[in-house]
Amino acid sequence: MKIQVGILGATGFTGAELVGFLLRHPSAEIAWLSSESQVGADYGKVYPQFAHRISDKLRTLISIPAAQATEPDIVFSCLPHAASADSLAPFMANAKTRIIDLSADFRIQEVAAYTATYEHQHPHPEWLPQVPYGLTEIHRDLIRKAKLVANPGCYSTSILLPLIPLLKAGVIEATGIIADSKSGVSGMGKKATEASHYISCNESFSAYKIGDQHRHLPEIREQLSAAANGASLNDMLFTPHLVPMERGILSTIYTRFAKGKNLSDSQAALTAAYAREEFVRLRRDLPRTAEVARTNECHISQYAPAEGGTLIIVSVLDNMVKGASGQALQNMNLMCGLDETLGLR
Amino acid sequence: MKIQVGILGATGFTGAELVGFLLRHPSAEIAWLSSESQVGADYGKVYPQFAHRISDKLRTLISIPAAQATEPDIVFSCLPHAASADSLAPFMANAKTRIIDLSADFRIQEVAAYTATYEHQHPHPEWLPQVPYGLTEIHRDLIRKAKLVANPGCYSTSILLPLIPLLKAGVIEATGIIADSKSGVSGMGKKATEASHYISCNESFSAYKIGDQHRHLPEIREQLSAAANGASLNDMLFTPHLVPMERGILSTIYTRFAKGKNLSDSQAALTAAYAREEFVRLRRDLPRTAEVARTNECHISQYAPAEGGTLIIVSVLDNMVKGASGQALQNMNLMCGLDETLGLR
Amino acid sequence: MKIQVGILGATGFTGAELVGFLLRHPSAEIAWLSSESQVGADYGKVYPQFAHRISDKLRTLISIPAAQATEPDIVFSCLPHAASADSLAPFMANAKTRIIDLSADFRIQEVAAYTATYEHQHPHPEWLPQVPYGLTEIHRDLIRKAKLVANPGCYSTSILLPLIPLLKAGVIEATGIIADSKSGVSGMGKKATEASHYISCNESFSAYKIGDQHRHLPEIREQLSAAANGASLNDMLFTPHLVPMERGILSTIYTRFAKGKNLSDSQAALTAAYAREEFVRLRRDLPRTAEVARTNECHISQYAPAEGGTLIIVSVLDNMVKGASGQALQNMNLMCGLDETLGLR
Amino acid sequence: MKIQVGILGATGFTGAELVGFLLRHPSAEIAWLSSESQVGADYGKVYPQFAHRISDKLRTLISIPAAQATEPDIVFSCLPHAASADSLAPFMANAKTRIIDLSADFRIQEVAAYTATYEHQHPHPEWLPQVPYGLTEIHRDLIRKAKLVANPGCYSTSILLPLIPLLKAGVIEATGIIADSKSGVSGMGKKATEASHYISCNESFSAYKIGDQHRHLPEIREQLSAAANGASLNDMLFTPHLVPMERGILSTIYTRFAKGKNLSDSQAALTAAYAREEFVRLRRDLPRTAEVARTNECHISQYAPAEGGTLIIVSVLDNMVKGASGQALQNMNLMCGLDETLGLR
Repeated sequence: MKIQVGILGATGFTGAELVGFLLRHPSAEIAWLSSESQVGADYGKVYPQFAHRISDKLRTLISIPAAQATEPDIVFSCLPHAASADSLAPFMANAKTRIIDLSADFRIQEVAAYTATYEHQHPHPEWLPQVPYGLTEIHRDLIRKAKLVANPGCYSTSILLPLIPLLKAGVIEATGIIADSKSGVSGMGKKATEASHYISCNESFSAYKIGDQHRHLPEIREQLSAAANGASLNDMLFTPHLVPMERGILSTIYTRFAKGKNLSDSQAALTAAYAREEFVRLRRDLPRTAEVARTNECHISQYAPAEGGTLIIVSVLDNMVKGASGQALQNMNLMCGLDETLGLR
Repeated sequence: MKIQVGILGATGFTGAELVGFLLRHPSAEIAWLSSESQVGADYGKVYPQFAHRISDKLRTLISIPAAQATEPDIVFSCLPHAASADSLAPFMANAKTRIIDLSADFRIQEVAAYTATYEHQHPHPEWLPQVPYGLTEIHRDLIRKAKLVANPGCYSTSILLPLIPLLKAGVIEATGIIADSKSGVSGMGKKATEASHYISCNESFSAYKIGDQHRHLPEIREQLSAAANGASLNDMLFTPHLVPMERGILSTIYTRFAKGKNLSDSQAALTAAYAREEFVRLRRDLPRTAEVARTNECHISQYAPAEGGTLIIVSVLDNMVKGASGQALQNMNLMCGLDETLGLR
Repeated sequence: MKIQVGILGATGFTGAELVGFLLRHPSAEIAWLSSESQVGADYGKVYPQFAHRISDKLRTLISIPAAQATEPDIVFSCLPHAASADSLAPFMANAKTRIIDLSADFRIQEVAAYTATYEHQHPHPEWLPQVPYGLTEIHRDLIRKAKLVANPGCYSTSILLPLIPLLKAGVIEATGIIADSKSGVSGMGKKATEASHYISCNESFSAYKIGDQHRHLPEIREQLSAAANGASLNDMLFTPHLVPMERGILSTIYTRFAKGKNLSDSQAALTAAYAREEFVRLRRDLPRTAEVARTNECHISQYAPAEGGTLIIVSVLDNMVKGASGQALQNMNLMCGLDETLGLR
Repeated sequence: MKIQVGILGATGFTGAELVGFLLRHPSAEIAWLSSESQVGADYGKVYPQFAHRISDKLRTLISIPAAQATEPDIVFSCLPHAASADSLAPFMANAKTRIIDLSADFRIQEVAAYTATYEHQHPHPEWLPQVPYGLTEIHRDLIRKAKLVANPGCYSTSILLPLIPLLKAGVIEATGIIADSKSGVSGMGKKATEASHYISCNESFSAYKIGDQHRHLPEIREQLSAAANGASLNDMLFTPHLVPMERGILSTIYTRFAKGKNLSDSQAALTAAYAREEFVRLRRDLPRTAEVARTNECHISQYAPAEGGTLIIVSVLDNMVKGASGQALQNMNLMCGLDETLGLR
């Protein structure tokens, strides 16, 4: 009997990416696909590449209320923040269903930070204490048994995977961290806007929400602070940029070695953390985003310039996979007692 | 009588860009085009877009020795480093010709730094004392009367234009500067290599020569040190990245405010430096590289995050224009007593 | 005294392209910019690349009614079809203003064909008899003295320029013509739609409105029929395709030699038509769209396969320039008695 | 016991694509990877995405002579034409190994046509009579038992799949066929040339080898002639174009209905041929290349314009998959008695 899976918000990019992975998954099966905006539409017309691969019952997108009346084993929510939390109560109320939320609604433990960042009241702060942050390699034990998992942001994953073990091991300082990140256009989502118009993106490169303005920064700071024994990460900077390509994130991260520490220590710390992980690879050379496209992998390189006591880290991942739907599936596998790599290789 | 111009190494990207600008220049005229590798070839076949716009005498590429026997008013050298310095002696020896060298051969005043960076003996260290660094807005008075001008690197221009006035005014610290730069593929030059293959570049983003390894860093450090009263810039970091697009550089630069200084001071310093400049624009919003494509402009934005005392600068330019051939032409205009913007608007 | 120019619908791609050309035009000056959708907006924010190049009075977009109260020398209408014809009556009514309409409203002489194609009643069929089709090289004498000129479609220009002289000279048959055309994404216009989303266009190629469904076909057939002494072009096929790039059209056109005619005849016919034209180039090799990007040129190659009596023509142009705003400016120059190439080289 | 597979010429694009598929294949295993140009190199450095997925023994590329000394179950040759035939004799000589040749060496049955097209003497004309053309859906019975299979060209597959059943059924004429095809850049191969430079391909579209000059045309004509009872296809035209994208082919094919035939007949013929095929999909809407990227599918649409008796066919496939390595793997599955879709979904 295969795991029955429902997807809320299946028409967006992360929803479609999940569908693609689930259609190849040996132990899971899609039970329904819901949509906020295209109820009743034929999913095979929204994504012609799935037209002949999905069963007839999946072709017609159901409404979110209709979805809420069901009890699948796993629900993935690919809805926008706020809409996501609003739709999850019925699934939280039944005993059977477990939830992986790809929105930002449960990523930040501190309610005030959430409210300030997303500019609305948190709909379910009472659930937060039991929701682990779904960075699989870091919070595996909590995720395994969770009712609801908050799948991390794409930028966040590329920054947290290298930094958390380094901070835990005391190899780098918690202060003065700068993450300069670059993302493909799929990170903007499927909505047609002036910013996502081909002519706006093609043959152009730009920064946006520089320094301390991007919504992923609070979840990043919170996770890093926890790794650094509660040290403040308030001066951490994060600048996202838009790259004219479909998918991929590369983060160039500038950190300072803790007193007495050097490249051997940082290499040892990351090797200890990831040597046995399937989806995190430590590289000696510099990775290109294309080398991880359509995989659930994060590749990490380290470099220590001769002067200044800086450790520079370059990490790459696919924002749609390890940065979203792939990690969500990895979490599903973990929660269901399956091999984490199932359907992801 | 128009200014007679010779171009050494006309088949490369910067050579072709120069030809395009010069064909529209009201007061200058191309006298000859030379090539290292394609002597005798038809320039109209190398670049079909010029086929019907160049006169018959320009169509056949002459050899560099043949070029050296002539005495035009201005010689642009678009040759690679080393080859460039080697070919300039005859032009240095005649009284009439003035030279703008787009290679790296005369950008670094300190001979040891040049030798270490470019891994060969400097062919003409005796010329260095009289060669200004051709950042027009900064060294205008020296360039105006120079025999030989060292046209700056593309990355360097995007970093130096914002930082030099800030260091001169004491608004930012000379230590701890990080420049995270991103460039289009034309920066790699015209040579067909595995790295410049369409399939290597397209749909991928990568860092290269991170931290302290790129050849533009010594010239950047030298110029910044001069602006900072000789302070050491040895801990400055510079990480270039490759963007899947033809042209454009964006530099995201992280600096620290000097004690007691803030965003008003940095804005005042850059306004004082550039308010009357045609080709440097101070922006309140964040610039996209596409907004300066095919122009000789550098656009600069500043942002001061709430915490940490950091000033973040974003600058954009076209690596082929203000980063190379456009600035070379601006220097020619200046050296010849013309309006600097001639042929560049 | 410079020619005073008004632009209706200045926020679209063709409007912006016109503004760019006019800012460099030595004998014309923009009097106002209007907008249907963004009245009162700052044009320098809509297009930051123009922010410091336009005068203060141009920065604020005026309404179309406000525009209609003025009497510039030339009005360009970059409005959509129907909206364009609706806004032109006041300009038609004054003696001074002459109009170049970049919409489709006056391209088709036969009213029934217009109505069928654009699915609304023609607002001013009474103007049609005096409106020349603005293919400059073909209808120069009519355009020179016209009150209102219908600027051709982008695809149409790439197909008509090679075919009209061949049909006039009787070198090719009027039956069995197939035009297989490919266009960059700017041809879709500035509106943000699912089809113009970066992720829809990037890394994909597709056909649309194949065979006989595209709106440019009626104007193409009408012009070709006129060139062929009224022969029917009803079996002509035209298939447009979308290329993942900003600008450029390439049309591959399959035609049949008339009895007894061959490649020498077709070369002679096109040479006779275009040898003295600045903007049409006959090529021996195959042109790339990049070679005409940002120029007002159309490059044409011909090839006759050994078997079958076919003449294949490849033509390229920039859909935004010779395919729209450049040709409009060429028409303005012609109408105002200026050198046709002014501002276009 | 898994099928043992050797790959000759593993460093090219089709070799790497094969490796990617084989690493996920449940019943086959790579025994060795050979290279003409990079013997001894680490395959994990040539393609970093495979670095941690291939076993140690595969990492070092062996020489082609060393490969020839082995006897795997299946050898794929991804070598260039001529080199491929030259290296296959030892495998032909042993009883065990069966061969799938991705080069052009055995695609054309008529030796004179091969010699004229590839400009060298055919090294093994004596093998030709027993080599089926590896278009799986068409020549399944011959491929199943073949010693050596000639895997079709990428363009050829996109043209032959729709046309062969239509000619066999007598629905279309064999004369006057025009295939206007467009391909992504990976079709040019991995060699770094001026033509494959990013700056040559990006933001440009071009035709090449138009009409009757491309090397795939003889194999296309031969296969179509066979489908049309030996009718001459000598007047068939084929024009390939280069699209600025990585992968994908779209062919727009213009054919004439046979007397009395219409769209119902062509739909019936293709439905009869492909309704039960996994990898050929008949579409009512127009397919985009992105919809088949990284799949082994060919999608086909048909359209009959109102006038002229023409049937227009649009077909899309991934030139690297159904156009090369995917079809090769499909042939391997067929030859080994496996489910054809194994490793390909």
